[in-house]
Amino acid sequence: MDTTFHKELQELKESLLKMAALVEETINLSVQCLVKRDSEMAQQTFEREDRINKMENAIDEQCLKLLALRQPMAVDLRFITSAMKIVTDLERMGDQAVNIAERAISLNQEPQLKPYIDIPRMTEIAQSMVKDVLDAFVNRDSKLARSVCERDDMVDGLNDQVFRELLTYMISDPKTITRAVHLMIVCRCLERIADHATNIAEDVIFMVDALVIKHHADAKEKEA
Amino acid sequence: MDTTFHKELQELKESLLKMAALVEETINLSVQCLVKRDSEMAQQTFEREDRINKMENAIDEQCLKLLALRQPMAVDLRFITSAMKIVTDLERMGDQAVNIAERAISLNQEPQLKPYIDIPRMTEIAQSMVKDVLDAFVNRDSKLARSVCERDDMVDGLNDQVFRELLTYMISDPKTITRAVHLMIVCRCLERIADHATNIAEDVIFMVDALVIKHHADAKEKEA
Repeated sequence: MDTTFHKELQELKESLLKMAALVEETINLSVQCLVKRDSEMAQQTFEREDRINKMENAIDEQCLKLLALRQPMAVDLRFITSAMKIVTDLERMGDQAVNIAERAISLNQEPQLKPYIDIPRMTEIAQSMVKDVLDAFVNRDSKLARSVCERDDMVDGLNDQVFRELLTYMISDPKTITRAVHLMIVCRCLERIADHATNIAEDVIFMVDALVIKHHADAKEKEA
Repeated sequence: MDTTFHKELQELKESLLKMAALVEETINLSVQCLVKRDSEMAQQTFEREDRINKMENAIDEQCLKLLALRQPMAVDLRFITSAMKIVTDLERMGDQAVNIAERAISLNQEPQLKPYIDIPRMTEIAQSMVKDVLDAFVNRDSKLARSVCERDDMVDGLNDQVFRELLTYMISDPKTITRAVHLMIVCRCLERIADHATNIAEDVIFMVDALVIKHHADAKEKEA
């Protein structure tokens, strides 16, 4: 491979890892805003999301340039087009973090409904998924990508658990309804972040194994 | 332009329009399942979502082939990479329709909480957004794409309205909480479908005007 192209691909990988690290940090900040009841952290979340948006555009341009000037084939072509899909997912994770921070601002103005135990746990898993899935992508590690898909079930399980718990709060005391709904939406945002990471993991597996796992899996589930 | 390449691009456009039409139909079916209280329509939704998944893979392959064999430049390159992002959004709209059908199955087992007026209205707007945004894409019509972005605000407004209405149901009668939460999620799915259409519209505007409208708009909002 031409060394300039090799260097450019390396730069693309570094940009992606940098963007993922920023997304991970933004998710953490948005949940800390809730858990520490510190609404000033919301502003930090918004600022980081703005940087995430700019990085998405920059990486898209990087990819378009590589496609136009280097006309890559096979594996490299698939890597670059996957990168363009991945930055979209990363950017939308940033949007979800903003949603969380906005709900946190509302929740912080009222007494805390319940101790936050499952939400930090969901956040930890979601963050680990973001980190690992990008590592899996740049290192073409489909095994690691598969472990990310598995963690998605854990996040879904925690979400269902919190959801049911919040329903019981709402039913026993209507005064809790608004806060419970805000918390349900926070959990749903975390679940969506995990979904985005899973989407990326499926792209990685597709890229590495050139195998369309996601719709195969769907088809199997439906047959069962 | 080489006539084979021209023909292949035409085929890609037709595939995209076909996929969008199927997505539109699937969204409609999922909501009809709720409005007509006919849970058998859920099965039809699931079948169509399966076809949507297969179309996503087929179009991705079509795009990869074009990139590898035709090594397109400038406008065509951007068109093909945008198509790859767009099919991801279309596929996720299919997922949202499945979510709606699943909630409809639960809701159809209980007495109807309220007449469905705003939900069919939201659905109509969301469907029109899916149709128009794909027309805007294949015809490189950024004006039509901008009108899609504007309709997103209407869907968000209706979603907020239903949300507040459902909260009042929940507060006045705890027996309605489970049904109200299901309906809130249906509305959120429709809102997310509109978001996906808006994402595509932003891609179209970007492609046509080579202008990054979405993050510009974000930046402006934050300055205000």
